Amino acid sequence: MSKFWSPLVASLEPYVAGEQPVIQDLVKLNTNENPWGPSPRVLEAIHTAATDDLRRYPDPSATKLRQTIAAYHGVSPDEVFLGNGSDEVLAFLFAGLLKHDAPLLYPDITYSFYPTYSKLFDIETKTIPLADDFTIRVEDYAGPCGAIILPNPNAPTGIGLPLKAIAALATQHPDQVVAIDEAYVDYGGETAIPLIATHENIIVIRTFSKSRSLAGMRVGYAVARRPLIEALERMKDSFNSYPLDRLAQAAAQASVEDDAWFMSHRDRLIAIREKLVADLEARGFEVLPSQANFVFARKPGHEGKALATALRERAVLVRHFAKPRIADFLRISIGTESECARLISALDDILT
Amino acid sequence: MSKFWSPLVASLEPYVAGEQPVIQDLVKLNTNENPWGPSPRVLEAIHTAATDDLRRYPDPSATKLRQTIAAYHGVSPDEVFLGNGSDEVLAFLFAGLLKHDAPLLYPDITYSFYPTYSKLFDIETKTIPLADDFTIRVEDYAGPCGAIILPNPNAPTGIGLPLKAIAALATQHPDQVVAIDEAYVDYGGETAIPLIATHENIIVIRTFSKSRSLAGMRVGYAVARRPLIEALERMKDSFNSYPLDRLAQAAAQASVEDDAWFMSHRDRLIAIREKLVADLEARGFEVLPSQANFVFARKPGHEGKALATALRERAVLVRHFAKPRIADFLRISIGTESECARLISALDDILT
Repeated sequence: MSKFWSPLVASLEPYVAGEQPVIQDLVKLNTNENPWGPSPRVLEAIHTAATDDLRRYPDPSATKLRQTIAAYHGVSPDEVFLGNGSDEVLAFLFAGLLKHDAPLLYPDITYSFYPTYSKLFDIETKTIPLADDFTIRVEDYAGPCGAIILPNPNAPTGIGLPLKAIAALATQHPDQVVAIDEAYVDYGGETAIPLIATHENIIVIRTFSKSRSLAGMRVGYAVARRPLIEALERMKDSFNSYPLDRLAQAAAQASVEDDAWFMSHRDRLIAIREKLVADLEARGFEVLPSQANFVFARKPGHEGKALATALRERAVLVRHFAKPRIADFLRISIGTESECARLISALDDILT
Repeated sequence: MSKFWSPLVASLEPYVAGEQPVIQDLVKLNTNENPWGPSPRVLEAIHTAATDDLRRYPDPSATKLRQTIAAYHGVSPDEVFLGNGSDEVLAFLFAGLLKHDAPLLYPDITYSFYPTYSKLFDIETKTIPLADDFTIRVEDYAGPCGAIILPNPNAPTGIGLPLKAIAALATQHPDQVVAIDEAYVDYGGETAIPLIATHENIIVIRTFSKSRSLAGMRVGYAVARRPLIEALERMKDSFNSYPLDRLAQAAAQASVEDDAWFMSHRDRLIAIREKLVADLEARGFEVLPSQANFVFARKPGHEGKALATALRERAVLVRHFAKPRIADFLRISIGTESECARLISALDDILT
């Protein structure tokens, strides 16, 4: 605390991101990164764009990339908003569309940045407990509220929501924004983007950090009808005119254009996940049904923290959350076949 | 206006950036970009960093780049804060350090994003008129206030402040933050960075967009003592954990390392500026004394807007601000020798 700080900065409770240690030969399954690099076309596009033109400001509204993403999803380019990672998109969303007189609703167990944004923008919130099986019950969100945000699939549980549940929720709250955070949707979830045609209150948030292998380039976006997108544009133009640099725009563009690469690597990851689930269950783990690029699992009779520590001693990093209801769980990102094999081998070493 | 908007988003008055038109053979002297591309070592560094590692999140605190910048300025790495362009650094600065019960002071004629940030974060402000010769008189900032922000050199005037005036101001306001926005300082100004050793309330903001030829990569930073830097870190960690992508960090790093390239191009730009000033004065222009990579000039008897329009018709873009006191001026970015020659030739065509 310093006399120079604004009252806001003194009140903050900053988000703590997953650990990014620099250790050789580490199996890093703690931040849900993609086990494979991006499409070779992405690297080519970056090489092509790295010219003297870097002296110029980037296109502030990323026109070409918006057009490409819009065509991919079958929406209009002006229904797409781009930001510096989906975290920046979420920040503008919280400030611009989720702050109202009534409370914002989200699950008690969810992306841990939501309470941080709510604190930053002084948003009244109400958390809705997940069911005992860790699913989201949309009927629990029926009460009066200012807005709703749900990840689909949810994190860190990995459990998805069916599209008709989201549509029902949006129909029930015609005057409130229903934000669907689809960071992990590509691994088996159903996207709500088609619903924006019939629901003016739905906004979908996406990232290039997971299924697109571009966590290192910071690109995220939102898809919604014009009035919601315009709110995000107004926030951006009051904060930072040029959130995406030239190389980030070029990289994301090439990624969307190489759909074959995207689909084959997504399918491969899902196959590894299914094998990992079977391997964990064979060792007595309870694994929540995952539609994401991670699994959330616990071993009855073993503390999550102790297991995470023992794995770390064996150079395998997973994420543990010291929070009520989920303290026994490990969140394990899906790695390559050999990384998952090393995880299983480390667990066998710990558990025998 | 939409029922889904938060009251904040409805109240905003977004910043309007300089035009970025796509016209062939345009002489673009309207956004203060560098006329030359970055050091070849920057492009090499980007090529080297564009690997499969892009699947990984970047270092959230840009450790290596902070160390390099710190060594360059002779400060400690934890006295440096990095952001996604100096615009993002300024946004965190306004919210975290410039918002207090008493008004924030800045000049009536200055960077036009300042009122936008103040509106975004609901900061009470008081503008202090420039003197008749468009200089900042620090004695006008002697009254009670919550904080002060001054660009040095000021924009769009280009006029610099001596270091001893800044030191006097900081001494006069020991309990208030004095922020010095040095976007243009490399072209003849005096940096206030050495003053942070003796003044715990001074914070200096820098950008790679101008003298470092990296507007397209979005890198900015702040230098100050720990408590001020910690405030910015807390803001960042409540907003976006990873503001700088991997390639932006690599590019900025290589730029700082190639100091010879930086100095030779800076010197060349200053020489072009001095010739342009002489050429404009020879044609009856009044040119404010510039320490920046632009000049601010008016031709008595001619309206600024009409001149800017006539130049645009001749494929030369300069910036005009339709604002009180400066409506007659043109802000002309310094281009290459041939770009400035084309500007002068277009003016000769217009004025004869």
